[in-house]
Amino acid sequence: MSSKQLSVVGIGNAIVDVLSHTDEVFLVQEQLTKGTMALIEADQASELYGKMGPGVEISGGSVANTIAALASLGSQAGFIGKVAHDQLGDVFQHDMKSMGVTYDTPRLEDGPPTARCLILVTPDGQRTMCTFLGASVWIAPTDIRPDLIQSAKIVYLEGYLFDRSRAKQAFRQAAEIGHETGVQVALALSDVFCVERHREEFHDLVVNHVDILFGNENEYKMLFEVESFEDVVYAVQQNCELAVLTRGEHGSVIITPDTVIDIAAEPVGQVVDTTGAGDLYAAGFLHGYTNGRKLDVCGRMGAIAASEALTHMGARPQISLAELLEEKIGHAA
Amino acid sequence: MSSKQLSVVGIGNAIVDVLSHTDEVFLVQEQLTKGTMALIEADQASELYGKMGPGVEISGGSVANTIAALASLGSQAGFIGKVAHDQLGDVFQHDMKSMGVTYDTPRLEDGPPTARCLILVTPDGQRTMCTFLGASVWIAPTDIRPDLIQSAKIVYLEGYLFDRSRAKQAFRQAAEIGHETGVQVALALSDVFCVERHREEFHDLVVNHVDILFGNENEYKMLFEVESFEDVVYAVQQNCELAVLTRGEHGSVIITPDTVIDIAAEPVGQVVDTTGAGDLYAAGFLHGYTNGRKLDVCGRMGAIAASEALTHMGARPQISLAELLEEKIGHAA
Repeated sequence: MSSKQLSVVGIGNAIVDVLSHTDEVFLVQEQLTKGTMALIEADQASELYGKMGPGVEISGGSVANTIAALASLGSQAGFIGKVAHDQLGDVFQHDMKSMGVTYDTPRLEDGPPTARCLILVTPDGQRTMCTFLGASVWIAPTDIRPDLIQSAKIVYLEGYLFDRSRAKQAFRQAAEIGHETGVQVALALSDVFCVERHREEFHDLVVNHVDILFGNENEYKMLFEVESFEDVVYAVQQNCELAVLTRGEHGSVIITPDTVIDIAAEPVGQVVDTTGAGDLYAAGFLHGYTNGRKLDVCGRMGAIAASEALTHMGARPQISLAELLEEKIGHAA
Repeated sequence: MSSKQLSVVGIGNAIVDVLSHTDEVFLVQEQLTKGTMALIEADQASELYGKMGPGVEISGGSVANTIAALASLGSQAGFIGKVAHDQLGDVFQHDMKSMGVTYDTPRLEDGPPTARCLILVTPDGQRTMCTFLGASVWIAPTDIRPDLIQSAKIVYLEGYLFDRSRAKQAFRQAAEIGHETGVQVALALSDVFCVERHREEFHDLVVNHVDILFGNENEYKMLFEVESFEDVVYAVQQNCELAVLTRGEHGSVIITPDTVIDIAAEPVGQVVDTTGAGDLYAAGFLHGYTNGRKLDVCGRMGAIAASEALTHMGARPQISLAELLEEKIGHAA
């Protein structure tokens, strides 16, 4: 894989996050399920925003976060995702390009504004998300540049793309290009409700088309319709070549058909905001993987990258992840 | 003053901050003077933004920060400032109104976009600012609502308004309304270069029209054209009824014609970003002052509010300042 120009090309929703501190009562009043992502329309977004406290705007999007973090780790990475010709679109594009990410998807010419995700952060650091997909789902077949995908070792896709048919089409197209040309396909399951909405299609994808799968325990349980952690591991070993399962403060598990590797969570002081922790785990893991590290080292890199996201509001790294890795594990980075 | 509906009405530039971590070398390359504010035009803003790293967008503006913090302290506060009909304008307006601030300035109909301030934060936590004033200076005489100003105990103005003639006109109009109707006039000197640009006018204002003056040591030195701290104190005592001088980690000094009160800085762990520390000091001070506290208590409230701004990126408080005050000084708050 060493002759490739890029390590990973990600395809995902191009979103700007609006983060705000809130309390549990507000989540109950707004009938939101803590720790999950709900899709909302423009008018609902406007109504919820009107009730929210003051916010902080930071570029987001699950796979976009992973790609930005890969760049911070020193990987050459690319992104495909759609924003509109508006100020939040400028913000998103700037934040990707300023990290050195290859990102040239044409903006949406006529249509809804740039996607935004209203993120309510409770005092325990948990985040609850409401996403207005806006321009992000208007990704066109011509945006899925085969040359960009073929220039990468891995194409990384988010389950969230399945929430709109146009984006799902882009997803399938990218996965096909990847497989036809020997590019490995990685998938993030994204959200337990997202898995529930598309369970059968995801199951088919995972069994037949995905080389590396990322998700948390609840997402895997939903995918395989099992109850216990042991049953998850068994199902994964029957169906996946390589899978990563994140478990919050309990660390993570890397599963192959014949091994199960436990990775401890990286200790952090106070958890400020969990937004993006899973996305940054994926970045650390993929950075190690595309550099030929052993799986346990990849997992440790994931845990370290994830720990950075917990220390501040927002998913994008605020320090150089390459320096953090160097400090934590030295030359292995 | 107790029959007033509002404690403070602020008039200032309505700005969204774009904060980004950088190093000293970048400041030198861009010929920026660390710790100061430079005005830039749209094309310069675009060029500098293109060179900056990924950012965090948070509502800003010096007096706007003070007003938001006053609301967080539990004061009834109002704001007058101009944004455009764009997404950053939406962000600014939302962030003010969601704090409970009275803020109804009509948006600019045709003209430049909402103002933004590119803030470069160095590893020592210092901030260096480049402001594109955009829509904020298009504040119109009709925006200066006399009823709003008269409903307040204090009208709080920023020196930055002097940087454009239209905004300066609004400033003078507000100060006149205030004085004619017994509303106290407070002024923030804003920035040493801003004082340099308008020294004579500021001096005249301070001597003849300002009741409470805020600034840091360098701003006062520039205003009175003196070199030493002792000479500053002497000049202030000759010219001001009440003045507050902030000195970073050395605390602050409250000066009246016959007293000089030293206030210690509130200890903080690591200084993440000094953006807004002076603005929040003013909020704490004015909160105490409008509630009839003694000047030393007002200063302590200022120091506590300022300390909150140092612990995170951006000027807007991330926790309830009322709760912070309650915790630090109990019933005096």
